[in-house]
Amino acid sequence: MAPTLKVETLSQDAAKVAIEACEAKARSMGIPMNIAVTDSATHLLAFSRMDGAKITSISIAIDKAFTASGHRIGTHLYKEAVWPGGPAFGIGNSNGNRFTTIGGGLPVLGRNKEILGAIGCSTGTPAQDQEVAQAGIDALQKLLQSTRAKL
Amino acid sequence: MAPTLKVETLSQDAAKVAIEACEAKARSMGIPMNIAVTDSATHLLAFSRMDGAKITSISIAIDKAFTASGHRIGTHLYKEAVWPGGPAFGIGNSNGNRFTTIGGGLPVLGRNKEILGAIGCSTGTPAQDQEVAQAGIDALQKLLQSTRAKL
Amino acid sequence: MAPTLKVETLSQDAAKVAIEACEAKARSMGIPMNIAVTDSATHLLAFSRMDGAKITSISIAIDKAFTASGHRIGTHLYKEAVWPGGPAFGIGNSNGNRFTTIGGGLPVLGRNKEILGAIGCSTGTPAQDQEVAQAGIDALQKLLQSTRAKL
Amino acid sequence: MAPTLKVETLSQDAAKVAIEACEAKARSMGIPMNIAVTDSATHLLAFSRMDGAKITSISIAIDKAFTASGHRIGTHLYKEAVWPGGPAFGIGNSNGNRFTTIGGGLPVLGRNKEILGAIGCSTGTPAQDQEVAQAGIDALQKLLQSTRAKL
Repeated sequence: MAPTLKVETLSQDAAKVAIEACEAKARSMGIPMNIAVTDSATHLLAFSRMDGAKITSISIAIDKAFTASGHRIGTHLYKEAVWPGGPAFGIGNSNGNRFTTIGGGLPVLGRNKEILGAIGCSTGTPAQDQEVAQAGIDALQKLLQSTRAKL
Repeated sequence: MAPTLKVETLSQDAAKVAIEACEAKARSMGIPMNIAVTDSATHLLAFSRMDGAKITSISIAIDKAFTASGHRIGTHLYKEAVWPGGPAFGIGNSNGNRFTTIGGGLPVLGRNKEILGAIGCSTGTPAQDQEVAQAGIDALQKLLQSTRAKL
Repeated sequence: MAPTLKVETLSQDAAKVAIEACEAKARSMGIPMNIAVTDSATHLLAFSRMDGAKITSISIAIDKAFTASGHRIGTHLYKEAVWPGGPAFGIGNSNGNRFTTIGGGLPVLGRNKEILGAIGCSTGTPAQDQEVAQAGIDALQKLLQSTRAKL
Repeated sequence: MAPTLKVETLSQDAAKVAIEACEAKARSMGIPMNIAVTDSATHLLAFSRMDGAKITSISIAIDKAFTASGHRIGTHLYKEAVWPGGPAFGIGNSNGNRFTTIGGGLPVLGRNKEILGAIGCSTGTPAQDQEVAQAGIDALQKLLQSTRAKL
């Protein structure tokens, strides 16, 4: 019997890399963003509200990262299942109403698809939010690969 | 006038039987689950998060068992009535948002259909969650029948 | 730069060992308990409400384990600092009111004092709750040592 | 009649300077910290959880910054007034329980003592948390003065 498990999770350094990549992307799009990074256990690791980002999008960004790290898939992937008539309709009421199915939350997955953390963005449209989050994912995947290459 | 009522409810021993049966089923399906058992008064009796089960499914599993023991039917049975236009639309906002209509919560009923408790599972699809909960129900019904046979 | 950290946490098997040890201790004391085990990230791993344990102690037990795993010390250790006049007075209002300074929550620490999880008990006096939680800690430490001995 | 007001508040660039100064101080003290920066309207601007900082201190750090920017004084300054018998006893229950009187939250004040934002830190003792927050304040005041000198 194994009394413990080893869980891998993003470091603060990695979170900063993600935030910077998201900020750069948001700047290039001309849309200031709220950007949240959570660890593999759904807890907030880093956050940045760019000048001009929406105040009511602060908690939306954090909830997107929370949901993506807990459920391990992008928040934009919830479609028919969570609509009226779908088997998961009402899931947004769970987890103290923090479970969100609005696009813009993406999981950071390791080599074996294990969850390492997540990024959530909010202020633009869900599609724009997701595009900015993806820039953070891309930067982290590049960082993870370069670290593995050195081993 | 009867000044009191006798309420029957699952014991902790029975809850453990249910958890083990659900865990065995989940293992056979290859899907680690959050499994919650509530008593006939909706209160948490036992809980197990199998290694690898989703963190954001902890409260969903507990809410499913809560709802199934309180309303005394499976959480998958809510259809048109809770959708927009239905007479119970918005019921998910009740009970501090803990009322859920996502499948995977099943009531444990006694010989006369009285409520004894409930099981709620979460991490897979609602159908998978329900399948795992059903394994717990089956184990409990077998236990209840064998106990009655001895009387 | 290390993009990830490795975090160790209790397994479900270990959580069951802890619950059983707490239950045995509680039985020997004649006090049915609510027993909660959290992982190193404060999330609920396992729970048992023994027959007769107080219903309003369910969430107290869970909050004790939550607090002990997040703040990494026993919940009984908070004394003058959290009383009126103390520098941490009011800490119980934090974390959505889940931070508790009532004895009965104990951290599970690894060989290098890293947090692996926590146990929270409730129904008796805080001293009794702590005694029961300690039985779970003892069982886990024995398990951890025997696992290390095999390596 | 002036129909509008101009409100000055920290920028995201300034928030990053504060976070970095706090991180450097925390590293020199050997205590990983949760560090939150809020704007002059109490809203979260930036956040960093250093590797190893306490999970249950995430919301405490954010609440300290929230309180310091809203009430415009350090959270360590609340003494007799908030203790039992004091005229502000119970203030910790206000603002959705987010008002905290635990040291470690400091306001960022402008030349005319107007509020510009706040810093909240948590994981160490309240005195240590305040020391780390002060490092962020010092860095911001230096930045503010150098900016004014250039005008």
